[in-house]
Amino acid sequence: MASEFELIARYFTRTAPTGLLGVGDDCALFPVPPGEQVATSTDLLLEGRHFFPDVDPRALGHKALAVNLSDLAAMGARPIGCVLGLALPRLDEPWLAAFADGFHALAAAHGCPLIGGDTTRSAHDLAISVTVFGAVPAGQALRRDGAQVGDDIWVSGELGAADVAYRLLDGQYPADAALLAATRGALEWPQPQVALGLALRGIAHAAIDLSDGLLQDLGHILAASRVGACVEFDRMPAAAALAAMDAAPLQRAVLGGGDVYQLCFTAPAARRDAVLAAGRAANARVTRIGQTLAQPGLIVLDGQGRPMTALPAGFDHFPAA
Amino acid sequence: MASEFELIARYFTRTAPTGLLGVGDDCALFPVPPGEQVATSTDLLLEGRHFFPDVDPRALGHKALAVNLSDLAAMGARPIGCVLGLALPRLDEPWLAAFADGFHALAAAHGCPLIGGDTTRSAHDLAISVTVFGAVPAGQALRRDGAQVGDDIWVSGELGAADVAYRLLDGQYPADAALLAATRGALEWPQPQVALGLALRGIAHAAIDLSDGLLQDLGHILAASRVGACVEFDRMPAAAALAAMDAAPLQRAVLGGGDVYQLCFTAPAARRDAVLAAGRAANARVTRIGQTLAQPGLIVLDGQGRPMTALPAGFDHFPAA
Repeated sequence: MASEFELIARYFTRTAPTGLLGVGDDCALFPVPPGEQVATSTDLLLEGRHFFPDVDPRALGHKALAVNLSDLAAMGARPIGCVLGLALPRLDEPWLAAFADGFHALAAAHGCPLIGGDTTRSAHDLAISVTVFGAVPAGQALRRDGAQVGDDIWVSGELGAADVAYRLLDGQYPADAALLAATRGALEWPQPQVALGLALRGIAHAAIDLSDGLLQDLGHILAASRVGACVEFDRMPAAAALAAMDAAPLQRAVLGGGDVYQLCFTAPAARRDAVLAAGRAANARVTRIGQTLAQPGLIVLDGQGRPMTALPAGFDHFPAA
Repeated sequence: MASEFELIARYFTRTAPTGLLGVGDDCALFPVPPGEQVATSTDLLLEGRHFFPDVDPRALGHKALAVNLSDLAAMGARPIGCVLGLALPRLDEPWLAAFADGFHALAAAHGCPLIGGDTTRSAHDLAISVTVFGAVPAGQALRRDGAQVGDDIWVSGELGAADVAYRLLDGQYPADAALLAATRGALEWPQPQVALGLALRGIAHAAIDLSDGLLQDLGHILAASRVGACVEFDRMPAAAALAAMDAAPLQRAVLGGGDVYQLCFTAPAARRDAVLAAGRAANARVTRIGQTLAQPGLIVLDGQGRPMTALPAGFDHFPAA
């Protein structure tokens, strides 16, 4: 059986890019361009809680980094590097090799090399912690608290597919192989919108990524910015795969479904063309779904222009009793 | 029951120092002084593996940060801030409050505020991930690979107490309340040698912190620097509490005992006075235990000047079969 040090060397040591001191010292070191700040985010993912035990390890390696890159995207930060903590209940080398492949492939695609980490054995659960670092010019980060009254509200990509895939895999919905095939990629291979976040610097007033669901995450922007909003359900970019779904599960998926890793952002109405150009530059679909209001609260209009009343809640790891 | 967001707000939100954007956005933001690099380290700690389930939560909060600050110390980096991931098997608010107290107290003592995090529920194990960030002027970090032939080898503090406390609590040694009382603080409340690491900038050639045990960690310096070493057991600063121990467990504790979080470093023989002055300035005991050699390998001499043959191994989370 390989030792911890051999494991680290085999799967997690890559030649560090110039200027970075990578895996193998007490700390990793990286430079930050003059005038830029460091943006950082951390996530702790657990088997049975954030992913199914039998998930494809390559997809898991991808997603563990993707959810953190999505946080950099939501700040308009350019990725610099990341560190990984891995607690393994057993030593399964093919599993580890596939996990590392998925992780490193996404890291390479975004210029976000693994520069440090910690590998340990766990008693029960597989646990994965990832911390990413990015850089953003001082004062240009896309924060949650910058929305202004009268801003347009936008979302990127499509909504709802990850929620449906999760409920199919979890047995909450009756088995539907075609629907699962059409939605599973959104759940297991989310694509962080890093290029869009960078393109929105200087255009968007506020941004967040949709990890907990549109209503809840948009709610964070509204609360931090002390504004309200009105959005229209029929404008929302529901995933094409959900076209045949009933209204109730569709609303739940689009409004409340988490694990989306698209961006929700606000921008002045005068910058609509700039937002559309940013979407084209980043090869990302962007859809305007409503606008912010001075009056607090979040109104969702249905297809008849009436406020929807029974709105789905977002995901909370410790739901109120 | 409190929601995740309420929990985060109650225990983990502090007013961020000027220039830092703290808990509550997709990313935390921090500035880095011109000409300095970021040093970062991450650890993933698990119940039953890195700490006993009944450990004092205040001590656990302290130690979770201390082991990471110790990595900054070993690089000669000044702490900037940290992020915390916490997976809780249950919601025990008194436990959480004590954990947060221990964490924040050490963070405040070292100017290393909590600026971001992730709280989640786990199925079985309590898991804690901490990532710290520090700053060090470019080119001045104390790396593992800088030792030169003929350097003195030094250690800070005392050795062995944490190992003995661990084995007493784990039932490997017969119960001894007095010995446990005298050693437990070293295991549960390690004091990271941040001030010493800063004082050794420009003096030490190489440094590491003693998380895995003296022989193993010194071995990492030797391997990275491509040098050998000869050290003398009788020079090593065994903890005073171990004075009555038999030779075998004493050697095991001093040479192989992990969880020490003191520094092992090398410095030119011509800088002995500077090292002693750095120790005084940092209020840290520093002890010279040997020197580096051109010939590869690590020789440990006993009290009669003979090479010791049966040396204890360091801690490995995945020991070879």
